[in-house]
Amino acid sequence: MTQPKAVCLLSGGLDSVTALAIAKSQGFQPFAMSFRYGQRHVHELKCAHLAAASAGVFKHVIVEIDLRSFGGSALTDNAIDVPKNRAIESMSDGIPVTYVPARNTIFLSFALAWAETLGAHDIFIGVNALDYSGYPDCRPEYIEAYQTMANLATKAGVEGQQRLTIHTPLLHLTKEDIIRTGLALGVDYSITSTCYDPSPTGAACGRCDACLLRLKGFAANGLKDPAPYAVSAA
Amino acid sequence: MTQPKAVCLLSGGLDSVTALAIAKSQGFQPFAMSFRYGQRHVHELKCAHLAAASAGVFKHVIVEIDLRSFGGSALTDNAIDVPKNRAIESMSDGIPVTYVPARNTIFLSFALAWAETLGAHDIFIGVNALDYSGYPDCRPEYIEAYQTMANLATKAGVEGQQRLTIHTPLLHLTKEDIIRTGLALGVDYSITSTCYDPSPTGAACGRCDACLLRLKGFAANGLKDPAPYAVSAA
Repeated sequence: MTQPKAVCLLSGGLDSVTALAIAKSQGFQPFAMSFRYGQRHVHELKCAHLAAASAGVFKHVIVEIDLRSFGGSALTDNAIDVPKNRAIESMSDGIPVTYVPARNTIFLSFALAWAETLGAHDIFIGVNALDYSGYPDCRPEYIEAYQTMANLATKAGVEGQQRLTIHTPLLHLTKEDIIRTGLALGVDYSITSTCYDPSPTGAACGRCDACLLRLKGFAANGLKDPAPYAVSAA
Repeated sequence: MTQPKAVCLLSGGLDSVTALAIAKSQGFQPFAMSFRYGQRHVHELKCAHLAAASAGVFKHVIVEIDLRSFGGSALTDNAIDVPKNRAIESMSDGIPVTYVPARNTIFLSFALAWAETLGAHDIFIGVNALDYSGYPDCRPEYIEAYQTMANLATKAGVEGQQRLTIHTPLLHLTKEDIIRTGLALGVDYSITSTCYDPSPTGAACGRCDACLLRLKGFAANGLKDPAPYAVSAA
């Protein structure tokens, strides 16, 4: 039996690399999609490339879009500083300046286009609503609404074909759970990049929201994060 | 009182130019957004530029994205011919090869990103579900689902701010009604381009679905279409 194709959004961070491993473990043939969108942490694309190769994806595309021209986020505007050393328990109170307007909506829309041309009915995205930064487009109700819209947007919705599913295997996992799951699936976290504000060589800062949540997840597993951190970081 | 901002998707075709005129007539300050996406009919962007200038939009952006790499449509793949001389009454039976997978979903997602950074709560799109080619992403139920998703995707949805509205002023109009409305608002249809397969100089073919619907709309108003057609066309 041929494996069903799945489009896997792959930033190169811990979450998306784990979601890709889960897609593969569930018997899907993964097609990975990354974005060069003007992100401050463009280093993540090197990690996405390594992770895609390591997972043996059928194809990996990097879509070029310019979200920097819209601004409005610390991740796409160097004039806005990435917050550091925030308390983890208050990260999901309010929406931080690292939120990129409509980013997941844009990413999922390109994934939807690719899925439709591939004849794939499955899209994987590594969003997480527990240990996260409070982004609106990581919430379960958003994903559910996206899936409803996607099924009306495409040929499948009109022609009564197989429905499209947005898979969010990490949605209700803690960072600790995600890392444990990934390790059991053989994920090499040394080649993942989570930091919002890495050094030019890709060393993580250890102090942004993303680093703090990641470090907490490894610590909860009794492990040291194998990814490189700047000397000054924790 | 300051005019509320609205992001207006502007292809340069008859419908989107009319939708822009309607947005303006309703008191919105229009911000126009077009896409260079690898379309066969890239001539439309010259018309979008002229129409934006003519309408006095506050800003006009052209977003560069590559939908050609996905293929799957006669509009983004020169190897697939644009159908000609189809019967108008059967155009909405099935989805033709001019359908571009997830195109409106991608366009609306960029509009959503821009709206959020502008602080705009209104997006205009010239979709039409009467005289159209049977595209799934032009149907009322799709637009409704998109709006629901968009309100969950963004800061507004979390922070209880003003809701975002996707305006579709042409949704239930015939091409005849659209043209009459636009003419009453002073739209210059000679600088709009609707054809899926224009000549290198931008002359319309007169035989694709889009041309046939447009010509029917002008004829129903007792008018000659002022846009240029190839000599061989109707």
